[in-house]
Amino acid sequence: MRHENLTLLTDLYELTMMQGYFYSDLKNKDAVFDLFFRIPPDGNGYVIACGLEQAIDYVLNISFDDEEIDYLRGLNIFSDEFLAYLRDFKFNGDIYAIPEGTVVFPNEPLLRVHGSIMECQLLESALLNIINHQSLIATKSSRVITSVGGDVVLEFGLRRAQGPDAGIYGSRAAIIGGANATSNVLAGKMFDVPVAGTHAHSWIMGFDTEYEAFKKYSEVYKEKCYLLVDTYDTLNSGLPNAIKIFLELKEKNKLPKDYGIRLDSGDLSYLSLKSREMLDEAGLEDATISASSDLDEYLIMDLKIQGAKIDVWGVGTNLITSKDSPSLGGVYKISAEIDGENITPKIKLSENTIKITNPGIKKIYRLIDKKTEKVKGDLITLVDETIDTTEDLTIFDPISTWKKMTLPKNSFYAKELLLPIILKGRLVYEFPTVMEIKKHSKKDLDTFWSQYKRLTNPQLLPVDLSVELFNLKEKMIKENRE
Amino acid sequence: MRHENLTLLTDLYELTMMQGYFYSDLKNKDAVFDLFFRIPPDGNGYVIACGLEQAIDYVLNISFDDEEIDYLRGLNIFSDEFLAYLRDFKFNGDIYAIPEGTVVFPNEPLLRVHGSIMECQLLESALLNIINHQSLIATKSSRVITSVGGDVVLEFGLRRAQGPDAGIYGSRAAIIGGANATSNVLAGKMFDVPVAGTHAHSWIMGFDTEYEAFKKYSEVYKEKCYLLVDTYDTLNSGLPNAIKIFLELKEKNKLPKDYGIRLDSGDLSYLSLKSREMLDEAGLEDATISASSDLDEYLIMDLKIQGAKIDVWGVGTNLITSKDSPSLGGVYKISAEIDGENITPKIKLSENTIKITNPGIKKIYRLIDKKTEKVKGDLITLVDETIDTTEDLTIFDPISTWKKMTLPKNSFYAKELLLPIILKGRLVYEFPTVMEIKKHSKKDLDTFWSQYKRLTNPQLLPVDLSVELFNLKEKMIKENRE
Repeated sequence: MRHENLTLLTDLYELTMMQGYFYSDLKNKDAVFDLFFRIPPDGNGYVIACGLEQAIDYVLNISFDDEEIDYLRGLNIFSDEFLAYLRDFKFNGDIYAIPEGTVVFPNEPLLRVHGSIMECQLLESALLNIINHQSLIATKSSRVITSVGGDVVLEFGLRRAQGPDAGIYGSRAAIIGGANATSNVLAGKMFDVPVAGTHAHSWIMGFDTEYEAFKKYSEVYKEKCYLLVDTYDTLNSGLPNAIKIFLELKEKNKLPKDYGIRLDSGDLSYLSLKSREMLDEAGLEDATISASSDLDEYLIMDLKIQGAKIDVWGVGTNLITSKDSPSLGGVYKISAEIDGENITPKIKLSENTIKITNPGIKKIYRLIDKKTEKVKGDLITLVDETIDTTEDLTIFDPISTWKKMTLPKNSFYAKELLLPIILKGRLVYEFPTVMEIKKHSKKDLDTFWSQYKRLTNPQLLPVDLSVELFNLKEKMIKENRE
Repeated sequence: MRHENLTLLTDLYELTMMQGYFYSDLKNKDAVFDLFFRIPPDGNGYVIACGLEQAIDYVLNISFDDEEIDYLRGLNIFSDEFLAYLRDFKFNGDIYAIPEGTVVFPNEPLLRVHGSIMECQLLESALLNIINHQSLIATKSSRVITSVGGDVVLEFGLRRAQGPDAGIYGSRAAIIGGANATSNVLAGKMFDVPVAGTHAHSWIMGFDTEYEAFKKYSEVYKEKCYLLVDTYDTLNSGLPNAIKIFLELKEKNKLPKDYGIRLDSGDLSYLSLKSREMLDEAGLEDATISASSDLDEYLIMDLKIQGAKIDVWGVGTNLITSKDSPSLGGVYKISAEIDGENITPKIKLSENTIKITNPGIKKIYRLIDKKTEKVKGDLITLVDETIDTTEDLTIFDPISTWKKMTLPKNSFYAKELLLPIILKGRLVYEFPTVMEIKKHSKKDLDTFWSQYKRLTNPQLLPVDLSVELFNLKEKMIKENRE
C-alpha cells in the first residue's frame, strides 16, 4: 500500500531556485513555461501525447505537509520564511494542454503553464517525468499497432517494467496508443481497461503431464481457453495435446468461442504456420494463434513478411520499456516573463539551432484539408493571432525558410490544439476515460496520411511558425548575439 | 498523493492459474520458486541485487480488500468460492534472499520462495517487477561509478525516468550502486540519502543579466555555490561572470568552501580544460567543475581519456533508464513441488541450453580465498549440502564440464548468500538503511578482482553446480527427453 505524498517528487534545484526567486525581485513576477520535446523516440514521425491526467493530479495535490517541511528544514538550506511560504503553497496559475491521445510534433507546447515564476518552476520535474514517460510508451504502442495491421495486441510487460508505476502507467499509455488489453490487473482496475491472460509454464509443470494440465485448465475456464503449447515440445507434445483437448470439448459441444494456443518461444514463423496447419487439419479453423517472445514492431513486421499465422501479439519488455529509445527528451522552458501588463518574451539560445526555443506565449493551429480531412501541417503562432481561412495561407519551414506551402483560401480549416485545463488553480477540464482517449487517438491518427506514420524514415509533417512568431524569434536571436 | 493498494500489481494469469490450482489436487501442495536472471544488462560481468525491501513490503501487504474483490468479481472469471479464498489471503510461506547490494551472477536464485503453490504463484509479477528494475539500475550505477574512478557521481534522472516510481526507486538503486547523491528530493526524504542541485537555465533567464542571476544566487546560498555557466556562452560570458562573482566573494572572505561551476552542453572536454585554466589563473584552484549532458559510462571514460578536468559527474537519462539495456530479464521458475514429506524437483526444459532451469531446492556458497580475500567462484548446491573446507574442492563449469578449478583445502572459506527474510509469513530480517546497503555493496565489490568488473567484455566468474545438483539436472533432462 502506498500513502506517499508526491509533492517532493522534484529535483532539489527547483526548490533552491524557488527560494532564490523568493528573495529576489522575481518573487512577484509571473511567467509562462512551455513543455515540449524536440525529437520523437525511435525515429518515429510523431508522438502520442499522454499522461496529462496524472500530471494535473500531481499539480492539484501539491501539499507541503509537516513531514515535507520537516524534511526540508533538516537539509539546512531553506529559511523558515521560505518554508512557511511552502507550507501554504497551492498552485494558483493556469495550465493549457493538448488533450491526451492527440498526435503531436516536435517543438509544440504540450503544456503551457502560467503562474508566478515560483509556482511554474516547482512543477517542472514532475510534469516532465509523467508526460515524458507516458507519451513515450503511448508512442511505442502506436508503432506496434501500426506493425500488426489489424491484429490484436496485448500488453504483457509488467515484470520487466521499470518499477510499479512504469507497469501501471505504462499499461495505461500502451492502451491509449492502441493496445487492446493488458495483463496488468491493477491497471485494468484503475483505468477500467480490458485485462487478458491465461497461464504460464509453471501451470503445466505443476501437473504430471501436459495433457492433464491442459484438461484441468479447460475445465475451469469454460468461456475462454488458451493453451500454452511450448513447455516441452511445441509440435510433438504441446500442439497434439491442445488439439486433443479442443476436439474432446468440441465433441461434447463445450468448445468455447474464444479459444486457441499461445506460442512463447522458438521460431514463431515456422511454428505458427505448422500450428495453423495442424489446427486446420483437425477442423479447428477458428482456433486463434497468439504469440509472445521478445516481440517488437520490427520483429512483428518481419514475421508477417514470412507469412506467420499469428492473430494475437503479446508484447512485453520492448513495449513497456520502449527498449530502443527508453526516454522521451521533453523539456520545460520559460517563454515569457510577465510584470503586470508587461509581457517580455524569453528565449534560450544554443549553439545547436534546434535547441533554440520559441519565445513568447504561443498556441498551435492544426491545418486540415476540408476535402480529405487530412492534416496539411501545424502552425505555431503567438497567442493573440488568429487564422483567416477565407484567405490563402502560406506557411514556411522556420529553418529551411525556402520550403513553403500555400493553402488556398476556403480549402482548409484550423483547429486549436491547446485547451484550458486549470484556470486560477481550478480544474476546468473533464478528463475523458482511458478508452475514450484511446478512441480519440485512433481517430486523430486517421487524419494523417500514412507517410507520416511510416515506422522507418517517415515523412516529417510541416510544423511551422507564424510570420509574427518567426520575426520575433529572429529579432531576439540577433539582439542576444550582439 | 497515492493511496493505492498494490495487491493487484500482478498479471491476470497469476490469478487465473491460482483459481486453477484452487480447483485441482495442487490446491494443497507446496512449491518452491526461484527468482534469477540469465544475463546481466549492458554486457556487464555481474548484477547488484537490489529491491528486496520493496519486494518484501509488497508481499507483507497483500490484501484483497472489498475494492479488489469487487473488481475481480466484475471480470466474470472468478468463482465466489475462490474470491472468498482471496479475501482471506495472506502470504504464510518462507522467503530466502540475497541481501541488497550484494554482487550476484547468472542463475543464482536472488530469492527463493516456499509456500503453497497458489501463494508462490501470486507473487511472481510484482517480485520480478521490483527486483528487475532496482537491480538493473543499481548495476548501471555501479558501471558509472567504475568509469569515474574516484570522482563524485550525482543522479539527475527524475525528469526522464519511466514514471514516478522509476524516479524514486531508480534513485534508491543508483545510490546503492554507488552514486553519491540524487537530485530527487522525494527519494532523499524516503531513503535518507544525500540530495544535490543548484539551479537551471531558467534561473539565469529570469534575470536581466547572467551576472545578476549569479550574484543573486550566491547571495542566497552562502554555504555552497555552483553556477551554471552555459546559458549564453560558456567561455565568453558564463565563466567570466562566475569568476567575477567568486573573486568578489573571496575579497569579502565569503567564498564558500564548496563552490564551482557546472557545464551542461557543448564539448565537455575542451570546455572543462579551458574552464580549469581560467579558474586557476584567477586563483580559484579549489573551484570544482561539474558536468552533465547525456553522460554515461562510455562517454565518461572517453572524456577522461581526453583529459577532461571534471570533478563531479551529473548523470541523468542514461542512468535512470539504463538506456542501452533498459530491462533485466529476471524470471521466476518453479524448482520443486512438495507434498507432505515428498519433495519432487522440477525442471523447465528448453531448446536453448542456457534456458534450462536448475531443479531442486538450492542455496549458494561464495568461495573466498583466505589470503587475498577475493572471490574464487560461486557454487550452487542443493539445500542440504555442506562444504567441507578442510578438503580440496574441485568445481567445474556446468556446460563446459572440462573447465575445472581446484581450491586447496584450508585455503578458502565458503559464505552462504541466501538468508531467511520471511518465515511462515513473518518478517525475520531487519532491513539495513540505504546508506548501509551502499556501503555493503562497495565492500562486496572489493572482494572481486578487477577483471570481473571490466565494463566491456569482462571475465566471467565461475558459477558452478555441485556434483549432486549437476547429476540431478542431467538425470532429469535425460528422463524428460525420453
